[in-house]
Amino acid sequence: MSLIDQKLEIDVERFKANFDALSQIGATKNGGVHRPALSPNHLKARAWFGERVKDAGLVLEVDQVGNHSAILSCQKNINTTLLIGSHLDSVPYGGRFDGALGVLAGLETLYVIKESNINLPINLEVIDFTDEEGTLVNFMGSFALAGKLDNDGLDNPRGGRKEFEDGLNRAGLVKSDILDARRNPKNLAGYLELHVEQGPILEREGADIGVVSSIAGISSYHVKFIGREDHAATIPMDDRLDAGLGASAFSLAAQQLVLRNYPGCYVNVGNIFYEPGSFNIVPRKTTLSLEFRAPNYGLMQHLRDALISKAKDVGEEHKLNVEIQLLGEYTPAAMDQQLQEWIVNSADYLGLKSLALRSGPGHDAQAFADLCPTGMIFAPSIDGVSHSSRENTSWSDCVNSANVLLRTTLQFIDSKL
Amino acid sequence: MSLIDQKLEIDVERFKANFDALSQIGATKNGGVHRPALSPNHLKARAWFGERVKDAGLVLEVDQVGNHSAILSCQKNINTTLLIGSHLDSVPYGGRFDGALGVLAGLETLYVIKESNINLPINLEVIDFTDEEGTLVNFMGSFALAGKLDNDGLDNPRGGRKEFEDGLNRAGLVKSDILDARRNPKNLAGYLELHVEQGPILEREGADIGVVSSIAGISSYHVKFIGREDHAATIPMDDRLDAGLGASAFSLAAQQLVLRNYPGCYVNVGNIFYEPGSFNIVPRKTTLSLEFRAPNYGLMQHLRDALISKAKDVGEEHKLNVEIQLLGEYTPAAMDQQLQEWIVNSADYLGLKSLALRSGPGHDAQAFADLCPTGMIFAPSIDGVSHSSRENTSWSDCVNSANVLLRTTLQFIDSKL
Repeated sequence: MSLIDQKLEIDVERFKANFDALSQIGATKNGGVHRPALSPNHLKARAWFGERVKDAGLVLEVDQVGNHSAILSCQKNINTTLLIGSHLDSVPYGGRFDGALGVLAGLETLYVIKESNINLPINLEVIDFTDEEGTLVNFMGSFALAGKLDNDGLDNPRGGRKEFEDGLNRAGLVKSDILDARRNPKNLAGYLELHVEQGPILEREGADIGVVSSIAGISSYHVKFIGREDHAATIPMDDRLDAGLGASAFSLAAQQLVLRNYPGCYVNVGNIFYEPGSFNIVPRKTTLSLEFRAPNYGLMQHLRDALISKAKDVGEEHKLNVEIQLLGEYTPAAMDQQLQEWIVNSADYLGLKSLALRSGPGHDAQAFADLCPTGMIFAPSIDGVSHSSRENTSWSDCVNSANVLLRTTLQFIDSKL
Repeated sequence: MSLIDQKLEIDVERFKANFDALSQIGATKNGGVHRPALSPNHLKARAWFGERVKDAGLVLEVDQVGNHSAILSCQKNINTTLLIGSHLDSVPYGGRFDGALGVLAGLETLYVIKESNINLPINLEVIDFTDEEGTLVNFMGSFALAGKLDNDGLDNPRGGRKEFEDGLNRAGLVKSDILDARRNPKNLAGYLELHVEQGPILEREGADIGVVSSIAGISSYHVKFIGREDHAATIPMDDRLDAGLGASAFSLAAQQLVLRNYPGCYVNVGNIFYEPGSFNIVPRKTTLSLEFRAPNYGLMQHLRDALISKAKDVGEEHKLNVEIQLLGEYTPAAMDQQLQEWIVNSADYLGLKSLALRSGPGHDAQAFADLCPTGMIFAPSIDGVSHSSRENTSWSDCVNSANVLLRTTLQFIDSKL
């Protein structure tokens, strides 16, 4: 009898108890969580995860980049592993489902498989990746494991050098050891991830389960405009070199550019840092945190060129110098066809309506798409709200998507028997 | 014989030695100083000032708001005082002349008068005011002394509550005592101040000495745009409520408004704070540090209304809520006619070309203009550079303007004999 005929299901009560307990760690007043990567709250959540792993008789491992794993080994001394990943970190003042749902559903999947005494043909590993949200270094944990991080990325952390070093110290990690977290891709049997959609499409289409077809590419840059600092009341208004005007003009222009010419793409200026930043000094320098996304490689390059050219035009118009610094670039990643089919089959079996869709947000899954069969399951997000304490997913969708993850995992194991 | 016939002059060597010593305190690599109000560097400069006062046999007094005074009392137990003021604090990474020149020229004036054994009809007091630059609370020292500060201003420091409290603690000041620094205006015989121009007008006109006719009014506000925080890759671009776009549109519009419709006025957006400030989150809230200036009361009100109305328009256009918080408002201040004449006469006597001009920047002098005869002398700023380590004034202009301050002080004393 194949595993998927055993009608295994997750233990809803245990799943809920774990979800509620985890939601308390770093909880914010309005129902979200504040667990930026390697912050004290994040480390508390990881310690809690470690306890749950050990309680269940699973093996806990922590690698050089801080990834926390719950391992259920096969008996045959085989070292190929199916990874089931997600993350316990959050954006500042984010939601309690983003990342946490995937980790807890993975843990529940391991609990159920362990309890069923299945004779595993491969190892199963539920992994909590470090800094999926890119608070310090974008996708630090998954990219280190996939061998896609380099020293350049670690020397220029987008969250700031001091913040990065403070985080490593808090977590007891050593920067020079991080790249050693790389694993041999030959040992990766596959990668599965359940995540909340973070967008409105599943809800709008009345679907219960999202079957991710591909993950959009993402680029992040620091764009800097540099003018001259002057007293704000003595240099005539038309004689200033105000870096704030460059930042403002570019922010507006970037939005208009994408709205008009790049449907399906996204751009965001999430932060602008003003220097020196006083009421009575004309800003000398502004540093913009720019991020943009596109569904395929060609569009990604085209959009990048258009944004860089726009920044230079704005600099020229406002007589400002422009510096453009690439911080991270992730190419669009296609999901495995076979895994997509199994996710659809699992949803069908459970009576759930599934929908294929593209992911705008990046995920740890994109680190593995070219290394091993990689699949992603989405649970609906109420009103599409994400990266906010108002983020929400109905509890029945959490349970349904966790059962789809379990069943897809069983199908994967079946295929290896 | 009147005092001005005694041909008293400042001691150039002593003046230079003091200027060079003070410039070392908080010196930056490129020739400026970093002495924000109540910072450790600022407190070191004040301690140094205290030593110079005591060395010269003058009386040192420190009041409840931290103002440091060098006092030369008249023998007649009269309690009216001519204040000669300026400040030892700087903007972050500012220049070494702004404020310091006025304090040291005042001190030199007191040295010379003390040495000449003049029988004074009033007390002379050189005062180093706390936080002229408004790093924590705009004109805290002079406005407290003039009775123009209130608890509201102290409860909402524009530099931030924690920064304000830290500064008070460092200086050994007690917030609840600050308003007790108020003095009875009846005891103020007059107010004189020498300051660098901080603008290019004297240099352009080939003038040696500026005779300030009035000081522009200044208002500072926090303008906040509030939208909705969302994941930067899931909510369609045209469905966002991006507080960054409001900040950008307002920054550009405010500059255009003043350029086109308000000649002689100034506006500056010196800082914008983004929340939550992440690469991948659409900004929910932006807080702009807005400052604007106008030469007279009517224009000031008109410009204020226009800017507030523009902020509301921008909010409406971008579907953002707008909050506008007044942080400080200083009405334009006219200088005393008699003092202006004496400054012109002093310059003429010394063979210096003087020029009447309006001050765009605010000064401690504006606290006193409606309480006692108030006058201001400007020294030229090379290239008009101010609030920058590149700020500069030729040494001969420093000496000339200090001699004008001394001679104007002597004329004032003469008039009381």
